[in-house]
Amino acid sequence: MPILFKKTKEIRNYIKSLRCENRYTVGFVPTMGYLHEGHRELIRTSKIQNDITIVSIYVNPLQFGEGEDFERYPRDLERDLGICEEEGVNVVFAPLDEEMYPEKPLINIEIKGLTHILEGEFRPGHFSGVCTVVLKLFNIIQPDRAYFGEKDYQQLKVVQRLVKDLSLPVEIVPVKTVREKDGLAFSSRNTYLKPEERESALSLYRSFLLAEKLIKGGNKDANSIKQTIIEFIRKHPHVKKIDYVEITDEDLRPVKEVKEGDRILLAVWVGDTRLIDNWRIGDANL
Amino acid sequence: MPILFKKTKEIRNYIKSLRCENRYTVGFVPTMGYLHEGHRELIRTSKIQNDITIVSIYVNPLQFGEGEDFERYPRDLERDLGICEEEGVNVVFAPLDEEMYPEKPLINIEIKGLTHILEGEFRPGHFSGVCTVVLKLFNIIQPDRAYFGEKDYQQLKVVQRLVKDLSLPVEIVPVKTVREKDGLAFSSRNTYLKPEERESALSLYRSFLLAEKLIKGGNKDANSIKQTIIEFIRKHPHVKKIDYVEITDEDLRPVKEVKEGDRILLAVWVGDTRLIDNWRIGDANL
Repeated sequence: MPILFKKTKEIRNYIKSLRCENRYTVGFVPTMGYLHEGHRELIRTSKIQNDITIVSIYVNPLQFGEGEDFERYPRDLERDLGICEEEGVNVVFAPLDEEMYPEKPLINIEIKGLTHILEGEFRPGHFSGVCTVVLKLFNIIQPDRAYFGEKDYQQLKVVQRLVKDLSLPVEIVPVKTVREKDGLAFSSRNTYLKPEERESALSLYRSFLLAEKLIKGGNKDANSIKQTIIEFIRKHPHVKKIDYVEITDEDLRPVKEVKEGDRILLAVWVGDTRLIDNWRIGDANL
Repeated sequence: MPILFKKTKEIRNYIKSLRCENRYTVGFVPTMGYLHEGHRELIRTSKIQNDITIVSIYVNPLQFGEGEDFERYPRDLERDLGICEEEGVNVVFAPLDEEMYPEKPLINIEIKGLTHILEGEFRPGHFSGVCTVVLKLFNIIQPDRAYFGEKDYQQLKVVQRLVKDLSLPVEIVPVKTVREKDGLAFSSRNTYLKPEERESALSLYRSFLLAEKLIKGGNKDANSIKQTIIEFIRKHPHVKKIDYVEITDEDLRPVKEVKEGDRILLAVWVGDTRLIDNWRIGDANL
């Protein structure tokens, strides 16, 4: 008689035993390169939790829309390899385009309620490109754990849901946003900022502190807090456009009344640089 | 210095070696149960090519549309286990619904040019459901090879493209359609046919032979061959409706002029039973 399994966990263990017990656990940090302090934090977390840490460096064309910054996105493999060495990364995967996309993929991946809001509204197709490359990388690397920064909070939620819906055998580990001393969230795109724009770029972080102050002061109305944030950011000289400011629960569902654990998410153009950032309400020590 | 890989194949081999060389190769036959001769052929092919053969039995609700036959789809796990034993299957995975879908998935998967034509046009959402369950099963079983019948030719092409676009580490092995002596393709849905409808059901297979005769006779015009097929099938008494008859190349792109290797694909309602079948032009020995 064949062995009968009805539970995913049990058949997974059986198959693991077929292939002989994993000797090493693999932690995976997918990146687009031009590594900064935020990436280092992902790597360090992986190093603590796994035997082997693999970093991928690949500027994925599929997640850039037409007219976006794919061409000018900063690239420096030598510098990145140096950082990986400093951090004790075991393996770097820097695939060539023809390895990742020998043909243009025909697949389109959507996740209801997650991929068409916020970033998805302003960058149509972005999350389909993210999901495709993440699935490809997971299928190639087959990591036990993968590390994603909260800086791209919506991406984190999309990937978590992807893993759930597709029963992927990987644990997604969120890592807190790392900020510069002045509060600006680390991002490879910060290199686009002109010196005179930096002060305006800080308005994102400062608007979170302002919101926290309002909430501590008793204002729980998401709409009025949103308006205050918009007005605050808009008065900075180099702010060209605000794509969105939203307040949601931790699963990106809009809220009317704000509570601890909710998220403020925003996307703002400072000069020619589009910055995104987000904040967990309750995280400021005021 | 970290080890640097730029090629998928090389990092895959490295990771394999980390997890220790596969001791066994796993062949996987995904089914919705109610196994017949077609499934047996898939299993036999897997048995020849792999050390371990795993059969999944799961009637996937996600690939049925509203008003379709999910409820009445035939199920008999005991009988299926008997067949698996006869065929020397090593493992059966028969997951519970709450294992596969603890929550309703939010994911939607499309493949441009493949999932919205033919079956996809008449069964919206069908292939998204197929892709989702196939990915889940692949992620759970992690097979080296997976076996799909040509009976569901479009499904085969969709799964092949899914594997390509997502770099899945599995080889898709197509297996030729198995037919009863009278030419009817084996299908679990044949159990729906009333005895008096069987003769009409044979019109699908016979229309393929008719088409081959026309082509051998020098007619290469896809449209005229299609019309002849439609007229031939329509005159059978229990034929209620023809959803489609199409002639395409092997990648499901429509053709005007027919050549060897092209496919005739059709979906026909015989009484309350929706039958699909397809034919590779050149396969008849006339």
